[in-house]
Amino acid sequence: MTSHAAIPDRPSHPPVTRIDDFYAVIPAGGAGTRLWPLSRAGQPKFLHDLTGSGRSLIQATFDRVARLADHDGVLVVTGESHASAIVDQLPTLSRGGVLTEPSPRDSMAAIGLAAAVLHRRHGDVVFGSFAADHVITDLTGFDAAIREAVTAAREGWVVTVGISATRPSTAFGYIHAGESLNIERAPSVRAVASFTEKPDAATARTYLSTGEYRWNAGMFIARVTVLLDHLRNQRPALYQGLMEIADAWDTDQQDAVVAQVWPKLEKIAIDHAVAEPVAALGGVAVVPGNFGWDDVGDFNSLAALLPSDDSHGSKVLGDHTDVVRVGSAGSVIVPQSGRLVTVLGLDDVVVVDTPDALLVTTRARAQQVKDMVTELRDRGLDEYM
Amino acid sequence: MTSHAAIPDRPSHPPVTRIDDFYAVIPAGGAGTRLWPLSRAGQPKFLHDLTGSGRSLIQATFDRVARLADHDGVLVVTGESHASAIVDQLPTLSRGGVLTEPSPRDSMAAIGLAAAVLHRRHGDVVFGSFAADHVITDLTGFDAAIREAVTAAREGWVVTVGISATRPSTAFGYIHAGESLNIERAPSVRAVASFTEKPDAATARTYLSTGEYRWNAGMFIARVTVLLDHLRNQRPALYQGLMEIADAWDTDQQDAVVAQVWPKLEKIAIDHAVAEPVAALGGVAVVPGNFGWDDVGDFNSLAALLPSDDSHGSKVLGDHTDVVRVGSAGSVIVPQSGRLVTVLGLDDVVVVDTPDALLVTTRARAQQVKDMVTELRDRGLDEYM
Repeated sequence: MTSHAAIPDRPSHPPVTRIDDFYAVIPAGGAGTRLWPLSRAGQPKFLHDLTGSGRSLIQATFDRVARLADHDGVLVVTGESHASAIVDQLPTLSRGGVLTEPSPRDSMAAIGLAAAVLHRRHGDVVFGSFAADHVITDLTGFDAAIREAVTAAREGWVVTVGISATRPSTAFGYIHAGESLNIERAPSVRAVASFTEKPDAATARTYLSTGEYRWNAGMFIARVTVLLDHLRNQRPALYQGLMEIADAWDTDQQDAVVAQVWPKLEKIAIDHAVAEPVAALGGVAVVPGNFGWDDVGDFNSLAALLPSDDSHGSKVLGDHTDVVRVGSAGSVIVPQSGRLVTVLGLDDVVVVDTPDALLVTTRARAQQVKDMVTELRDRGLDEYM
Repeated sequence: MTSHAAIPDRPSHPPVTRIDDFYAVIPAGGAGTRLWPLSRAGQPKFLHDLTGSGRSLIQATFDRVARLADHDGVLVVTGESHASAIVDQLPTLSRGGVLTEPSPRDSMAAIGLAAAVLHRRHGDVVFGSFAADHVITDLTGFDAAIREAVTAAREGWVVTVGISATRPSTAFGYIHAGESLNIERAPSVRAVASFTEKPDAATARTYLSTGEYRWNAGMFIARVTVLLDHLRNQRPALYQGLMEIADAWDTDQQDAVVAQVWPKLEKIAIDHAVAEPVAALGGVAVVPGNFGWDDVGDFNSLAALLPSDDSHGSKVLGDHTDVVRVGSAGSVIVPQSGRLVTVLGLDDVVVVDTPDALLVTTRARAQQVKDMVTELRDRGLDEYM
């Protein structure tokens, strides 16, 4: 398996002008069960280099946002079990740059805590939340979108990023864009008419045909007080709990208060707690993201991010010399055990080879890998999860 | 990988009356490249338990023939690199029961040497040659066929065993049976009209429709002097060389003579050297073998020998608890590394998992596994072969 310790710290992007009073939050949670056995509870997706770039997903995310927010302006919110691996992978992350959760309470608690801590530390700054396990290509497009989003956020909007949909994906939620907001220096920002859940294929095709729907990249940009005010209105108990914790943060009361309050916090996604109800009230905006984006949800989408290893569209994540294919087109091979992986006469097969567990499936079944994880759990094979 | 040391010595068959002055020869050569990566040059097919019986193929062969020839009446002919593994697996094999070849010279040299050594040691006895890596079910049928064959051999025939063909296999050679020989106490023995190479599918179907063709199980039963006389007539130089070696065998000249003469011996199969030309002269007979037989040539034929692991026709050679399948019918899984092997949504797949190499293919491609071995050789990956 890829060792996170083996991934060098190599910020690979040219410097850009940072955005004043802008902070980046990276929620790092979720095991990524559709990427089992590469991704495990103890070694989740964001700690892996899934693109062959030499950087793990969280390192690439950090590199991307630290250019805009500065190294000292990045906060990672994660579980206690991943904190040290993250600090190892991100040596330039500031002290105090990791907020550890004693248990997962979903994204609203994680992002709300970060917003509240930023408010206590820095006042009414703008922050953006960026998942630790997404892949973005075209940084120029990313930078431009975030700059527009920050401009709109300063005006009081909760801003999302809508990726131009290149296919009728059923794996993503969609943002239905409404009227232009005519914001100065943020000309492409529009109101959000509504968010949608992952659609079926026919619905997804309809969305694409209208040109009004974009993929929801799960990014949120807002002033911390704007987000917290919405949270107070929508989920007052969760807001109060987070305020109690934030008041104690960076004090000698922190551990005691977290231990007491955190376990009682409501477990809810930011989408349901704030984004959807506030969109219905007219408070959410969307900036178009015209850059390559993927949440690397499964081995098929992972394949799309890798260069072809041969003229038959085969992909390898790992050491190419560990793989021998005869009569096998379109395969996705993840050799992570040091063993020789050979495939004969099977097209579009997925082979994920780790030191203690092997998965053989097809690209068409990639979304169903979570069913295998469920089966392992049912059989009590927790040591492989 | 299955360790040959882990296979217990457990002769599992009830005793039968042994055949007087009958000796069994087991040529143990051939890596079995269609069973890669389970079968390797250093750990060939015959050292593995391929049926889940708890006995390796050579152990099962020994058990089968030692009942008829006695433990002291069995000779194994093999390469120097396999001699110690064979002795480990066959602790009841007599001293002097292993004839080691310094290099492979094909089956005529191996069987001819055994016949000549038997002649020196025991006189004009009858011997039978039985491949180390075949699987036989129904020992009663086997015993009956060999007893008839020995009776015919005493009369001067070179006797082969023709297995009743249950399908138009293109993986086996066929024996075309001729007239009945009307031998007393060997009523079903017939002359061999001819041997055929492996046929194409249409020819194989024609063979089956006539009822005159049987699978050539590669067994030969003859008086040692009968075989050696045929060899002298057909291949005088090879005969002379083998006589020189046999004269020195069991003496202090053995190693020196073997080193000098063996490398010059003609490399030829007993089929081409003796069986085919002598059949044309009317000297070869066939006894019908009405028992289950397979040469376990590939993973698909291996599958046919294993009990089903589930209601979907899936087969496992190894520890069943190392395998988890979801939506996978007819798969053949060989878990030999101790790792968890999981298959999702792929039917009829073959997964062979060994500590240093993995093969993923399909049952339909089982015969082409040798192409993978060729590819590995072409790439210089000899450490996996």
